[in-house]
Amino acid sequence: MASNVYIGLVHYPIYDKRKKVVATAVTNFDIHDIARCARTFGAEGFFVITPLESQIHLVERLIHHWVAGGGSTYNPTRKEPLSIVRISRTIDEADREISGLWKRKVKRIATGASRHPRSVGFGSLRKILEDRNTPFFILFGTGWGLTEEVKDGADYVLEPIEGIDYNHLSVRSAVAIVLDRLVGDRLG
Amino acid sequence: MASNVYIGLVHYPIYDKRKKVVATAVTNFDIHDIARCARTFGAEGFFVITPLESQIHLVERLIHHWVAGGGSTYNPTRKEPLSIVRISRTIDEADREISGLWKRKVKRIATGASRHPRSVGFGSLRKILEDRNTPFFILFGTGWGLTEEVKDGADYVLEPIEGIDYNHLSVRSAVAIVLDRLVGDRLG
Repeated sequence: MASNVYIGLVHYPIYDKRKKVVATAVTNFDIHDIARCARTFGAEGFFVITPLESQIHLVERLIHHWVAGGGSTYNPTRKEPLSIVRISRTIDEADREISGLWKRKVKRIATGASRHPRSVGFGSLRKILEDRNTPFFILFGTGWGLTEEVKDGADYVLEPIEGIDYNHLSVRSAVAIVLDRLVGDRLG
Repeated sequence: MASNVYIGLVHYPIYDKRKKVVATAVTNFDIHDIARCARTFGAEGFFVITPLESQIHLVERLIHHWVAGGGSTYNPTRKEPLSIVRISRTIDEADREISGLWKRKVKRIATGASRHPRSVGFGSLRKILEDRNTPFFILFGTGWGLTEEVKDGADYVLEPIEGIDYNHLSVRSAVAIVLDRLVGDRLG
């Protein structure tokens, strides 16, 4: 049975360090690391969300290199994870693609490094994801994080990963920990 | 109380894809991501282990930039994690530095993506780490992983992170998940 979990890496709309809404640049390491985590934990798809044409071309080239080009023979362990990467111009566009496949409304989960009035714990969300008839779309922000508007529009806002007086994980590390906590050791 | 957990990122001795023992190159993203994870979960130190002078200079420059140079004002959230980064030429050299501070023998933990005859589970190792009078040194391999010799010389070999028919996480993602499972939510 296909997994009901999808990941979105959002490059717009995103806060910069001054809380201005911007489009961030795509980072190669994000795509590789997150695709490999998504594949490890059985996520069904990983959407890279960016409206910038230059960035879209960059991601397309990267996927092509590892899935069909020279990289696919140099390191075949990269081929499978990058096969689940999709590119979307907006969160809504990715959402429509998922709901089109499922013929069901997608439930969105926003993540972030700070507490939110609506924060849901990892344990509770893990149980919610057990509803296999509903597709869930977990959104991760780049830069200084997802905008309040994106959080307000989400069905759930996940509690932050708590550190010891410090919580500035890279988005790559955050995705790894969040997926492990929410669907790690879940079978299929 | 200071934490009893130290991390080592090993660049030599390491297997390459043909299982030949090599020295791998240092990756900037590894240093940043792992330092930020180490700081988040309260690890006491993070040793980058490489015998190559060129690589040592590269890591020194990177640390200086973010701890004392231009990076420290551009993004202060990088300063604190990079302050715990140390450079060692060998695993033994790092081990001696830790045992010198503790006046105690260091217990080494090897990690990897494949099962090992001596594999210890995450739950058991989490309990073992509660012995706060002993310093533990968790070793992560780059490239195609730690050599059998390093594993044989370790006090414990941690079980791999199990994926769904796939376990090729980046070392950055592996460190994030391993630290979260072993010391996440541990207080101080």
